[in-house]
Amino acid sequence: MTQESMPLSHIGWDSFNRLPVTEKAPYLAGSDGRVFHVLLAQQFNRAALDSLGGLATRIRRTAKTEEGMTFLRGLMANKRAMLYFTQPSSRTFLSFSSACQILGVNVGEVRDTATSSEFKGESQEDSLRTFSSYFDMIVMRTQVGGLAEHTAWVLSNTERPIPIINAGSGKDQHPTQALLDIYTLQRSFEARGGIDGKTIVFVGDLARGRTVRSLAWLLTNYTGVRMIFVAPEPLQIGRDILNLLDAAGVTYELASDFETTIPEADAIYMTRIQDEWDTTEGESRKIDTSRYHFRPEYLDRLGPHAVILHPFPRRQEIPTAIDHDPRAVYWRQMRNGMWIRAALMALIFKKERLIDGYYASVR
Amino acid sequence: MTQESMPLSHIGWDSFNRLPVTEKAPYLAGSDGRVFHVLLAQQFNRAALDSLGGLATRIRRTAKTEEGMTFLRGLMANKRAMLYFTQPSSRTFLSFSSACQILGVNVGEVRDTATSSEFKGESQEDSLRTFSSYFDMIVMRTQVGGLAEHTAWVLSNTERPIPIINAGSGKDQHPTQALLDIYTLQRSFEARGGIDGKTIVFVGDLARGRTVRSLAWLLTNYTGVRMIFVAPEPLQIGRDILNLLDAAGVTYELASDFETTIPEADAIYMTRIQDEWDTTEGESRKIDTSRYHFRPEYLDRLGPHAVILHPFPRRQEIPTAIDHDPRAVYWRQMRNGMWIRAALMALIFKKERLIDGYYASVR
Amino acid sequence: MTQESMPLSHIGWDSFNRLPVTEKAPYLAGSDGRVFHVLLAQQFNRAALDSLGGLATRIRRTAKTEEGMTFLRGLMANKRAMLYFTQPSSRTFLSFSSACQILGVNVGEVRDTATSSEFKGESQEDSLRTFSSYFDMIVMRTQVGGLAEHTAWVLSNTERPIPIINAGSGKDQHPTQALLDIYTLQRSFEARGGIDGKTIVFVGDLARGRTVRSLAWLLTNYTGVRMIFVAPEPLQIGRDILNLLDAAGVTYELASDFETTIPEADAIYMTRIQDEWDTTEGESRKIDTSRYHFRPEYLDRLGPHAVILHPFPRRQEIPTAIDHDPRAVYWRQMRNGMWIRAALMALIFKKERLIDGYYASVR
Repeated sequence: MTQESMPLSHIGWDSFNRLPVTEKAPYLAGSDGRVFHVLLAQQFNRAALDSLGGLATRIRRTAKTEEGMTFLRGLMANKRAMLYFTQPSSRTFLSFSSACQILGVNVGEVRDTATSSEFKGESQEDSLRTFSSYFDMIVMRTQVGGLAEHTAWVLSNTERPIPIINAGSGKDQHPTQALLDIYTLQRSFEARGGIDGKTIVFVGDLARGRTVRSLAWLLTNYTGVRMIFVAPEPLQIGRDILNLLDAAGVTYELASDFETTIPEADAIYMTRIQDEWDTTEGESRKIDTSRYHFRPEYLDRLGPHAVILHPFPRRQEIPTAIDHDPRAVYWRQMRNGMWIRAALMALIFKKERLIDGYYASVR
Repeated sequence: MTQESMPLSHIGWDSFNRLPVTEKAPYLAGSDGRVFHVLLAQQFNRAALDSLGGLATRIRRTAKTEEGMTFLRGLMANKRAMLYFTQPSSRTFLSFSSACQILGVNVGEVRDTATSSEFKGESQEDSLRTFSSYFDMIVMRTQVGGLAEHTAWVLSNTERPIPIINAGSGKDQHPTQALLDIYTLQRSFEARGGIDGKTIVFVGDLARGRTVRSLAWLLTNYTGVRMIFVAPEPLQIGRDILNLLDAAGVTYELASDFETTIPEADAIYMTRIQDEWDTTEGESRKIDTSRYHFRPEYLDRLGPHAVILHPFPRRQEIPTAIDHDPRAVYWRQMRNGMWIRAALMALIFKKERLIDGYYASVR
Repeated sequence: MTQESMPLSHIGWDSFNRLPVTEKAPYLAGSDGRVFHVLLAQQFNRAALDSLGGLATRIRRTAKTEEGMTFLRGLMANKRAMLYFTQPSSRTFLSFSSACQILGVNVGEVRDTATSSEFKGESQEDSLRTFSSYFDMIVMRTQVGGLAEHTAWVLSNTERPIPIINAGSGKDQHPTQALLDIYTLQRSFEARGGIDGKTIVFVGDLARGRTVRSLAWLLTNYTGVRMIFVAPEPLQIGRDILNLLDAAGVTYELASDFETTIPEADAIYMTRIQDEWDTTEGESRKIDTSRYHFRPEYLDRLGPHAVILHPFPRRQEIPTAIDHDPRAVYWRQMRNGMWIRAALMALIFKKERLIDGYYASVR
């Protein structure tokens, strides 16, 4: 998982910030070309996704025994991670903190800088640099687009650069969500030749769901993947993503009728209406989204090996009656997030050989 | 501590919910008949209380040495507990988290779902199932009566059922408080033949104090216990509890004059006025409760081996001047909560043999 | 680090509270004369500062290797610390919790007693005594002056006294900040004969910055230290501190022109305007404080071995352009806080011999 690297400390912030997202990856690697900061889905190519998924699986299987858990817990017991979550998300927070616990990483939290008076008059840069001085990595979730990138850049220019993991940043990037989605697809298609050649149907609010955007991008690493984007017109996927897909030579279709796409799907990626991004009061309530729900009767139209994913939280788009169908993998998908995040941290701190060694020794 | 068990996944929620509280216990045991979910005081019979108290004592004594602490800390280091405390209670929270630390259990927290926007539109079931996917048990405290039971039922119907411990649920149940009260009585009467045959005086707000209700119920497991309920008329204990006591053949008395009951007591269980449950503004302020305070001069009337308990927080019902009397055991009672909760978790995860083995080896 | 000790349980609260700050130290030591409660800068004499700094350095160096970290993490793994931070301070909180993690200490938190309804009607004494019952020490930060002292006194009169560490109490004391400042000076002057004989320039809001007051006091332990206090008239250092310096025979000067003092400084201690203590709305905004900023051009006037400190947070008083100058040690100062706090806890729990032994064995 190495690639050409260029030191982030050798480029000005404005120049870095203005780079197209596809050209930022080299600056985020360590000097040895390995993954260091994890900020963008675009940092991960096919080889990186394969090795990350493999590592997640080895961690997951190792954790099945008491002895394996004890081994994992000792791996990073000397490391401390700051979970800087100023945008609340218990879901992602618990997933990361559980991943930390699996590897023995000690955790500190900052959650409420927005409301705390102690930060008045202090620059966010100083706050983050302060916090960084006690930790070995920062996992950062914030409503401020680009803050994770900026922090990575700031810390790369200090005596004590530490890796930043983007756990969701503004409307834009949520790379570990995309990675867990890929991992779920890898596991789902393990016995069917992997992700290559599969048809993925995306459904719902495709305009604003950052998970869809990142996942679509990551899928361009695979050959022969066909994507079908099913959404009401105002929530259809953005032209910018389609341009990327065009450039990558990916086959895709836009559709508005969900039901007819179901038999073609190897995976259906459901999403909820992201009305928290509405610019006017309740604009998305005017759209009839009920046609983009997965109705129980659709199960009959779904292929026997197809799977249903959802990044959660869900509202009405998937009734709980569907949860018991073995093709509904969204609960497993949630736990996959814990494993892939553990794998990512293990990779950043170069623990994969120790894990591989232990894994080989007990098989 | 085994009993007949019936799988919670084989009964509908409505049917389970409608069962009398005394008939729910079999559904809360694991398939091996051992304790699994801990939701109700009614799950604990005499044998269960005896073995739980014994285990708590062995854990407490083991923790007195560095080596013993190290042993305990390794027992459940591979487990993760979610402390889901949407009803704030630093007291119970710290008691549970300390119990977790004693056994090496890793802890994650959810505290503020009521205010967090991330939960808008998501069912509580989904939230809880999400959180459960990262953990091995859930300790739950909530203002919503029955939520712990419902969560246990929901999770029992998934591929990954995990135990739920009720840390206080609505007006109704707070079983671990009742267990620590019993443990305090067990310790207090250790040299006096145990709880059988003792006279317990309950004082204060008996109508609304869930601890009194649960403790009274648990005391029916002992023979010859006499209960005296001392309260102002509007706050006297409810008919439903008295019916249970009648059914169990327990001797009890209702009284309104506190002072005269003191010489008869082996234990006095003081409580505060629970005005947070007032339905109208300040209804309990109209009641003169000063006659239900333990005045310093009452110490002279109290038997030399009698003890004073209080579930805390206290207000005026016990002046601090009494704290130094050796018969005031309420501070020790607090620490007993930590030990009994550790014992409960150790029991759920089947660690009692390891603890007994270690304990025997060092005596 | 032993001194004459007098049991805190043998003096009434009012008598203790009325003692001059310089006479309280003996009551805060353990019965063996070692440090127990850490409440006041005045508890630390020259010998104590030297041994504490030495221990912090040995911990810091030990933590540089994986094996050393593992050793440290085992030192206090059986201890639990409560971080009672009702005055928010992520900075100090994270520093203490990281120090705890380095030594393996388990942490519990109480942060929000002011807003939580559960504390209504309960005395703060009861709350703190409750929390103390689960822990082995309390680290306390609060807006209430004297609360840490009072808690220490209350707990010393119970069966289970545990040490209290003052992490900032009201306007008055913040001893661990003063200790980390001293440690930073110790490290900065390591190759230049130590702190003795150095000139320290204090700049900014000297009237209200408790760090300045405590640091000035601690510096009286050294010989030949000269202090220059540079501030606008209304924010100049208080007469009470100057009286202490007079009594200690310390040379000091008051100045209002910052620039001319720079060439004389061995260390410059910058501070921000503490407008949170303004009694009327914005009184300190009327003062022109821009003359008390460290301008980039001042670097040319600063001696080649001099250092710039700042307790943080900073506002405009030091532009970020200065951060890259090697004489700007304020970021290192921040990390020093973590090491000195770890050293303090190790000392309280008598772990210094184990640390010294390990340190000697690997050199």
